[in-house]
Amino acid sequence: MVNRFVSRGLSTVRRMVSGKDSAELSPRLLDKIRTQLTDCVEGLGGEVSARQRAVRLAQTYLQLDDEGRHGFLRLIALEFGPDPQQVARAHEAYQSAIGTPGQWDAEAGLRMAMRSRRIRILTQFNAIPQGVKFLVDMRVDLLRFLRHDKELQALDRELENRLSAWFDIGFLELQRITWNSPAALLEKLVEYEAVHEIRSWQDLKNRLDSDRRCYAFFHPRMPAEPLIFVEVALIDELAESVQGLLDEHAPVFDAGKADTAIFYSISNTQVGLRGVSFGNFLLKRVIEDLQRDLPKLRHFATLSPIPQLRSWVRQNPQAVADNFLPGDFKKLARVGIDNLDAPALQAVLAGQATWAANEELSLALKEPLTRIAARYLLEARSKDKPYDPVARFHLGNGARVERLNWLGDTSEKGFDQSWGLMVNYLYDPDAIERNVETFAREQKVAASSAIRKQARR
Amino acid sequence: MVNRFVSRGLSTVRRMVSGKDSAELSPRLLDKIRTQLTDCVEGLGGEVSARQRAVRLAQTYLQLDDEGRHGFLRLIALEFGPDPQQVARAHEAYQSAIGTPGQWDAEAGLRMAMRSRRIRILTQFNAIPQGVKFLVDMRVDLLRFLRHDKELQALDRELENRLSAWFDIGFLELQRITWNSPAALLEKLVEYEAVHEIRSWQDLKNRLDSDRRCYAFFHPRMPAEPLIFVEVALIDELAESVQGLLDEHAPVFDAGKADTAIFYSISNTQVGLRGVSFGNFLLKRVIEDLQRDLPKLRHFATLSPIPQLRSWVRQNPQAVADNFLPGDFKKLARVGIDNLDAPALQAVLAGQATWAANEELSLALKEPLTRIAARYLLEARSKDKPYDPVARFHLGNGARVERLNWLGDTSEKGFDQSWGLMVNYLYDPDAIERNVETFAREQKVAASSAIRKQARR
Amino acid sequence: MVNRFVSRGLSTVRRMVSGKDSAELSPRLLDKIRTQLTDCVEGLGGEVSARQRAVRLAQTYLQLDDEGRHGFLRLIALEFGPDPQQVARAHEAYQSAIGTPGQWDAEAGLRMAMRSRRIRILTQFNAIPQGVKFLVDMRVDLLRFLRHDKELQALDRELENRLSAWFDIGFLELQRITWNSPAALLEKLVEYEAVHEIRSWQDLKNRLDSDRRCYAFFHPRMPAEPLIFVEVALIDELAESVQGLLDEHAPVFDAGKADTAIFYSISNTQVGLRGVSFGNFLLKRVIEDLQRDLPKLRHFATLSPIPQLRSWVRQNPQAVADNFLPGDFKKLARVGIDNLDAPALQAVLAGQATWAANEELSLALKEPLTRIAARYLLEARSKDKPYDPVARFHLGNGARVERLNWLGDTSEKGFDQSWGLMVNYLYDPDAIERNVETFAREQKVAASSAIRKQARR
Amino acid sequence: MVNRFVSRGLSTVRRMVSGKDSAELSPRLLDKIRTQLTDCVEGLGGEVSARQRAVRLAQTYLQLDDEGRHGFLRLIALEFGPDPQQVARAHEAYQSAIGTPGQWDAEAGLRMAMRSRRIRILTQFNAIPQGVKFLVDMRVDLLRFLRHDKELQALDRELENRLSAWFDIGFLELQRITWNSPAALLEKLVEYEAVHEIRSWQDLKNRLDSDRRCYAFFHPRMPAEPLIFVEVALIDELAESVQGLLDEHAPVFDAGKADTAIFYSISNTQVGLRGVSFGNFLLKRVIEDLQRDLPKLRHFATLSPIPQLRSWVRQNPQAVADNFLPGDFKKLARVGIDNLDAPALQAVLAGQATWAANEELSLALKEPLTRIAARYLLEARSKDKPYDPVARFHLGNGARVERLNWLGDTSEKGFDQSWGLMVNYLYDPDAIERNVETFAREQKVAASSAIRKQARR
Repeated sequence: MVNRFVSRGLSTVRRMVSGKDSAELSPRLLDKIRTQLTDCVEGLGGEVSARQRAVRLAQTYLQLDDEGRHGFLRLIALEFGPDPQQVARAHEAYQSAIGTPGQWDAEAGLRMAMRSRRIRILTQFNAIPQGVKFLVDMRVDLLRFLRHDKELQALDRELENRLSAWFDIGFLELQRITWNSPAALLEKLVEYEAVHEIRSWQDLKNRLDSDRRCYAFFHPRMPAEPLIFVEVALIDELAESVQGLLDEHAPVFDAGKADTAIFYSISNTQVGLRGVSFGNFLLKRVIEDLQRDLPKLRHFATLSPIPQLRSWVRQNPQAVADNFLPGDFKKLARVGIDNLDAPALQAVLAGQATWAANEELSLALKEPLTRIAARYLLEARSKDKPYDPVARFHLGNGARVERLNWLGDTSEKGFDQSWGLMVNYLYDPDAIERNVETFAREQKVAASSAIRKQARR
Repeated sequence: MVNRFVSRGLSTVRRMVSGKDSAELSPRLLDKIRTQLTDCVEGLGGEVSARQRAVRLAQTYLQLDDEGRHGFLRLIALEFGPDPQQVARAHEAYQSAIGTPGQWDAEAGLRMAMRSRRIRILTQFNAIPQGVKFLVDMRVDLLRFLRHDKELQALDRELENRLSAWFDIGFLELQRITWNSPAALLEKLVEYEAVHEIRSWQDLKNRLDSDRRCYAFFHPRMPAEPLIFVEVALIDELAESVQGLLDEHAPVFDAGKADTAIFYSISNTQVGLRGVSFGNFLLKRVIEDLQRDLPKLRHFATLSPIPQLRSWVRQNPQAVADNFLPGDFKKLARVGIDNLDAPALQAVLAGQATWAANEELSLALKEPLTRIAARYLLEARSKDKPYDPVARFHLGNGARVERLNWLGDTSEKGFDQSWGLMVNYLYDPDAIERNVETFAREQKVAASSAIRKQARR
Repeated sequence: MVNRFVSRGLSTVRRMVSGKDSAELSPRLLDKIRTQLTDCVEGLGGEVSARQRAVRLAQTYLQLDDEGRHGFLRLIALEFGPDPQQVARAHEAYQSAIGTPGQWDAEAGLRMAMRSRRIRILTQFNAIPQGVKFLVDMRVDLLRFLRHDKELQALDRELENRLSAWFDIGFLELQRITWNSPAALLEKLVEYEAVHEIRSWQDLKNRLDSDRRCYAFFHPRMPAEPLIFVEVALIDELAESVQGLLDEHAPVFDAGKADTAIFYSISNTQVGLRGVSFGNFLLKRVIEDLQRDLPKLRHFATLSPIPQLRSWVRQNPQAVADNFLPGDFKKLARVGIDNLDAPALQAVLAGQATWAANEELSLALKEPLTRIAARYLLEARSKDKPYDPVARFHLGNGARVERLNWLGDTSEKGFDQSWGLMVNYLYDPDAIERNVETFAREQKVAASSAIRKQARR
Repeated sequence: MVNRFVSRGLSTVRRMVSGKDSAELSPRLLDKIRTQLTDCVEGLGGEVSARQRAVRLAQTYLQLDDEGRHGFLRLIALEFGPDPQQVARAHEAYQSAIGTPGQWDAEAGLRMAMRSRRIRILTQFNAIPQGVKFLVDMRVDLLRFLRHDKELQALDRELENRLSAWFDIGFLELQRITWNSPAALLEKLVEYEAVHEIRSWQDLKNRLDSDRRCYAFFHPRMPAEPLIFVEVALIDELAESVQGLLDEHAPVFDAGKADTAIFYSISNTQVGLRGVSFGNFLLKRVIEDLQRDLPKLRHFATLSPIPQLRSWVRQNPQAVADNFLPGDFKKLARVGIDNLDAPALQAVLAGQATWAANEELSLALKEPLTRIAARYLLEARSKDKPYDPVARFHLGNGARVERLNWLGDTSEKGFDQSWGLMVNYLYDPDAIERNVETFAREQKVAASSAIRKQARR
């Protein structure tokens, strides 16, 4: 049922755009669109006809080039807003009714006056096949244009509000994704994976093996599109290296014996849903599902990158100087590096990964760089919040900083972001709620005593 | 999947209410609720915690007696609205930004100021099992209280808006209901059928036989609750009597040979969705599905009651006098009735059904009463719209008045509403769009020439 | 998918038979059938054509009256068997090849010679819509005719063998049936329930409530037909009365707290599958499923009728005399009954249920009648096996006789069968295998010490 | 539901074999197996226990090395057959009962005596998870051993018979396979494709695009295993080149406009089902489904290899000499080849594909080689049937030889089999039945007049 619908929807949309090359937005076309939009808003001929006009409008939109689409959206944004005079009248009525029995009617009246015709237009796209996806994709355009055109702001807010209502967490379905899922869906994982690239179908199959889990949230109207997904490894200790987790030749672990679930990759997929959050619900629901399915699981943790560590260090060079202690210099001296300006050390700090193979050098650097990372995670701030975006996400969800892993990600990207360091955030089911509240109130970073110790000089 | 979910949800809700007897709303409890609502709104502790508070609030609500629930809803309505001063400031900023680049930001700002905390509270109920149903049912309460307490108006409007977004036609699924549908679902049809009562499971089975169709709209989050459903009979001519259609002993017609689909019953089920309309989409989608499935079908029509005919006649007694013509009186004279005041005729007009068995009397009355009905359908108005609510619905959807059926519904209800007269509204797929537009523009009643002729004296 | 298929199949079959009235088997028709069967067997034109001929044959069969069907089946039985001369040749080749390398080829050859053309005919019915059900129903006819016509024996055995292969336990699916199951399926439960009649949809709904379970085996090709089903009550002690279990007004028990599952009704539905057994697998699989779902369950037992108790007593009148002890007579004397021939006692023993309301009489009879029942269950034999068919079934599946329940079934049927006595057979998961083996080897009846004690005088 | 079952079954089987290395069949183990088999056959302890023993036997079997498995199967074949003396007695009783009323009982008796205990053993494997697949795979072993050990013949026949009953066409489900099918299933297509290798997931996706169809038969107990599948291309003329069909960069054709469906690959997947045929039903059912789905389709044809053409020519060298006509030699002379022994021509005939790029040479060879192919298809015989196995399959299913395609398959395999020639077999829905019957009766090859003309010199 679902599949037929999806494929029908997809082919409709594909046919929509494939007919012609993308078109420019001539004044004549602009006029035609204006007329279509007006018809659409006035809703003459009943809702059914109005929706049919929405289909034609969507086709027009999809055939436009980028400039044309920008013009189309500006037209909706600027010409279909509320009427300021009507708003003024409704506002006056509202204010003078405050405290009287008429207040509540007046409030509804003001809200009605504020309701723009834009949202009536946008809503009608929802009835075309894959209309929700159409709107989510349209918002991708909108966000792009918004960077340089602040006049789209009101439209974007209205669209975001409507999408927030539609993508309310209560409507989402958590689904487990396995090697038995549709290939068309698995293909999307490959496309959307944002943390650790999926290199091949074999790599993907390995990530769906019996000692792995993959979960995603879906919306009933976008059944073929995961909204956010998390990849989980089931093992018997905290994972310390992502290359270890992704090794296709590693033996399969018996999931029934695992005591630890590692969330090693979380990817949002829909740029057009910016501002609509579901990550925190995802982890909560996945933990519940795993506990039910595998009662031996005790620990739930991530193996996460520290994406901003080195960019923060570049902006705070003193951090390096502060955290290399005499003992560290002694070890460095043993590998022939005398001071902070030594080329070898500079090469490390500037990010060339070649030193990783030099075991002695690596050992000498482990302590001071780990110390820098620990202090960064515990102390670095941006507008009173943790500087690191991944830390912000997990701490906000109730995790604590548990452990730093030296050489946790030996990929080029890993070295570029954080000298290969990775971090485990631990989700202790019994502490999540408390951590969330403490963090919300005081923005205080929860951390293990080991991390606290490492952060001390 | 669905079933497990449903049953889990149901049992949760059932457990919610079964714990205690319904409670009064003591000042202490009111204070507690106020605190819960405030916590809920402030959202301290992340969305996950906030939703958990919503569950507790829902439990509290369900355990309250009617007065308590009224108090609970008033509390939300009156204390969690927007802040008038903040609105005033945002409005001033908006008005003074008109025509400047800041207009669109200011518009978004005013809208934000208008967004009440009420909707934040209501939304969170959506995350509990069967939360959508909970809100729909809460609105049933709200509509009831609203009759005497206009201060709930603003809250009701906000809830209606949110439900409209959630029950957007694009989210609904059309499903065919058959004797193979879950008994728990069929039970709901029995409960909700509003036009022609379903008397037994055997009656229901007859309505789902191979020469019948039943379709309903469902929402993905209320999978066990039909929102609106239509019952269809497949025959080879316009149906003229509902008792004929519902006769359990009538032979089964070969659906593949039918050229006419009769929509003989349409029932909305959710009082709490008042103001959210999907009836017109339902018929459009059902006609499409029937055409695909049974390509021999040519005619799509209803067999509808005329619920307000006699109540309108009571308010317009002249209508009777005007439409009994000399010829009619002659026929009446033959059965011994001399004038409009004759007891026998008065008995008919006052609704005692006993005359139906009197064939001669019935024949004598057929013409004048049919004439009254035809004129009523074509001419009676309420606020410029057709007086009859069923006529309003079908004409608004693009149907035309096709035929009146004498003794179409010989049930007591049938005589009480319209002296047993029923009407066929015809949906001509080629004329629907045109009819909708004409009706929307001119409120003109589309009708067959036969009906027009009957309406003439 | 399934549903559409099923309804298509059903309507095909219905159309098959509804076309004409049932026909007689004229010599001309017999000849036509003979030709059809021959064509069918020779398989000219490929398997596809052969199957099409099977459809026509099935139609012919369904239109015949009983005598005609008998003739049809005789024709298959007598004219399409193996060729005795060919069998003789193959047998000779087989016997002379014994001990030589050619033995195994010769064995296959003899088996081939024995393979009758009958089975080729029957098999081809399998390809028509609902063909499997057609064959199962045809066997119902066959078993009926077989009672008086032993010449159908060989055909029946071949059909039974084929059905055994098709209904191998490995192909069956255990499904839980709930109030969310299709009405068309639930209707079948009402029809097939053989132990305690289902009186209404309300009664049925009560049997599917949250403190009940219902399981059935299904075959993939008969998805709408339960093959065998069991009804289970979840309670917190051994059930002692079936009227208690079936009381629609009894409060719902919290299934999560139940420690006992009572199998209070097991019904085979397909007479045509006689000789193909799946009852023992059903209970085993249901116990597994219940243990997984409700880990607090400790006891699994039946509440069973004792259908042959009184008919056995009628044939063994001495059993009464032997088991009324002096103490029993004393109690009887107190209610005015002096000896075994007293009319009141005779009325009891002859089955008029009126005495049940007489509490004193009931108490006086409880001990001697229970003693008779205990001895009957432990000792009464038919061909070395327990006399009672229900006892045979459960003891063969590894249960033990656990407890007798006085006034366990106060229905008329209950009194007629066993003076209202019912019995619990207990399935102790740890003892089942041992009991099965002991019973298979020694036909020894496993029983609780309480029962053993009751059986002693 | 299905998926959980499948994965559970798979993991059970995997766990079975992964425990130990494959083991030898020591005399001690042989004795143990004999005991297990005997227990299994005697069925002591009820069917449930017997099935549990089957699981242990299956585990033993899977852990054996090849020699051990051979020994295991011999043991079943030789020691658990029927008892010749019992057979002799039953046969005597049967023969002497011929013509008497006891004949039919005696026939059943002989059949019972012939029923070996082997089949009882095999049947019980059906109850283990994936038991059917286990038996199909066991037959793969059996067929392998049978090549050198004819004493396994009787066992193989009994297994084949049982598999034929279980895989009766009536039990199979036709399913369409799309890019939305489970990846685990699509992976099987890649593995099993026997005609034109699937090179990558991208190649596979291309074969499932909107202008393609793929159908397979499935058995309810092997839901993850296609039994046979066919790949279809939807185009608007007879396909002449398989490379054209498989070109991933070719534009997608609008399936709704296609008038021709090309079956370009049919693969049986289960070696263990040899002798159980479903290919003819597959094409019939696929044609029906395509006609329903795409009413514009008029032509149904294959694009098939001619696998034995060149091997037949090697055995019939005269065919070459006969079919090179004077006109052909003239053309060859123009490209410098004077006689049949010229090295260039020999190179062609011996199969080096290099000449294909030589357009003139290719043109000169087209006519004579096509003529050879036409005559081969029309006239070459093996045991009175067409020599070519693919021709035998399609002609037997009711197709006719329609057209030969020069350079239809330019792969190495294509040249090796048939100098790159391919053939279209045409399935004319109106002629299929007639063709099947004619072919079955007379083994006459149906062919287009074009082909008949090409076959003439």
